[in-house]
Amino acid sequence: MPELDFWYEFASTYSYLAAMRAEALAGEAGVRLRWRPFLLGPIFFAQGWKTSPFNLYPAKGRNMWRDMERQCAIRGLPLRQPDPFPQNTLVAARLALALPDESRADFSRAVFHAEFGEGRDISGEQVLRDLLGALDLPAEPVFARAKSDDVKARLRDNTEDAQRAGVFGAPSFVAADGELFWGDDRFEQALDWARGKGTS
Amino acid sequence: MPELDFWYEFASTYSYLAAMRAEALAGEAGVRLRWRPFLLGPIFFAQGWKTSPFNLYPAKGRNMWRDMERQCAIRGLPLRQPDPFPQNTLVAARLALALPDESRADFSRAVFHAEFGEGRDISGEQVLRDLLGALDLPAEPVFARAKSDDVKARLRDNTEDAQRAGVFGAPSFVAADGELFWGDDRFEQALDWARGKGTS
Repeated sequence: MPELDFWYEFASTYSYLAAMRAEALAGEAGVRLRWRPFLLGPIFFAQGWKTSPFNLYPAKGRNMWRDMERQCAIRGLPLRQPDPFPQNTLVAARLALALPDESRADFSRAVFHAEFGEGRDISGEQVLRDLLGALDLPAEPVFARAKSDDVKARLRDNTEDAQRAGVFGAPSFVAADGELFWGDDRFEQALDWARGKGTS
Repeated sequence: MPELDFWYEFASTYSYLAAMRAEALAGEAGVRLRWRPFLLGPIFFAQGWKTSPFNLYPAKGRNMWRDMERQCAIRGLPLRQPDPFPQNTLVAARLALALPDESRADFSRAVFHAEFGEGRDISGEQVLRDLLGALDLPAEPVFARAKSDDVKARLRDNTEDAQRAGVFGAPSFVAADGELFWGDDRFEQALDWARGKGTS
């Protein structure tokens, strides 16, 4: 089965859109998604941005929120802006990597839903514990693993892998041959590419 | 007939994509497009950018050119990167405004085709004269009008109108009620909105 890396950042609104349709789209396409959380902060920082470009450039930010309202309405997704934006996603990203592979997608969708569907602050440990609990995932050992050097290193490695693959924003999709697609708007084309049906 | 403002900048690659399908899409939707050239330079400059973000952020730039290759392949459009990029589009934009309304779309498509389909330098007067000639448009009076204070002021006013409407990139689409859509990827939704079929 062809594979596609799904690079997402929990602070990213368009990653929310992609995460919520990821399984359905990939299932239809017959492509296995690898859910790969990473941190945009270091990538933005390296190019001189200290916060989200949606905050740095107000007209771009206003359009993004209005566009999110429209896309969520079309897709029947709830939308509520979290405060602050962007959220600190370090703990959530480590937890996602601390979980076994088969639980990562469910947990990631739960984080996105809490953050952008309900406007909750997902930087806090209690919210994340509640989300794990609601999925019947054992919070204590997952938190312990999330704080291990191994998981901390995996998140750093993921972020470096993303940057090496050319990722500069989220969501991004990278096929086995290295072809990069940026944005939820290119999700379908990335899947086509992964199954060998893309243009060359 | 509902109307939609089509804001475009001749230096913008995604404006090329939008321009080449604009008449077909708008015709199907039963929407009248107002072709409104403007300059992104002053808008970028106001937010601290002295060149295109695709030059300022190399990973973003590499992805844009690769994405353009894919989109042009899908749509059967030629693509050749002009040098330099971005091009100086001041004269082309003034000429577009100097023309009668009914010639603006044809001339604009010809400029985009020369620039991004053939990689020609469209900052030069001779290239622009040739494009006018190929459309049987009288180069001399159009150039004379393009240099008039009236047309210079119209281009400045257009750029200010765009900024006031919230435009921060190109192409953008603005409906009669002020709803803004950014990017060729939102062209269909902008047309739906203009005909009252958008989400609210």
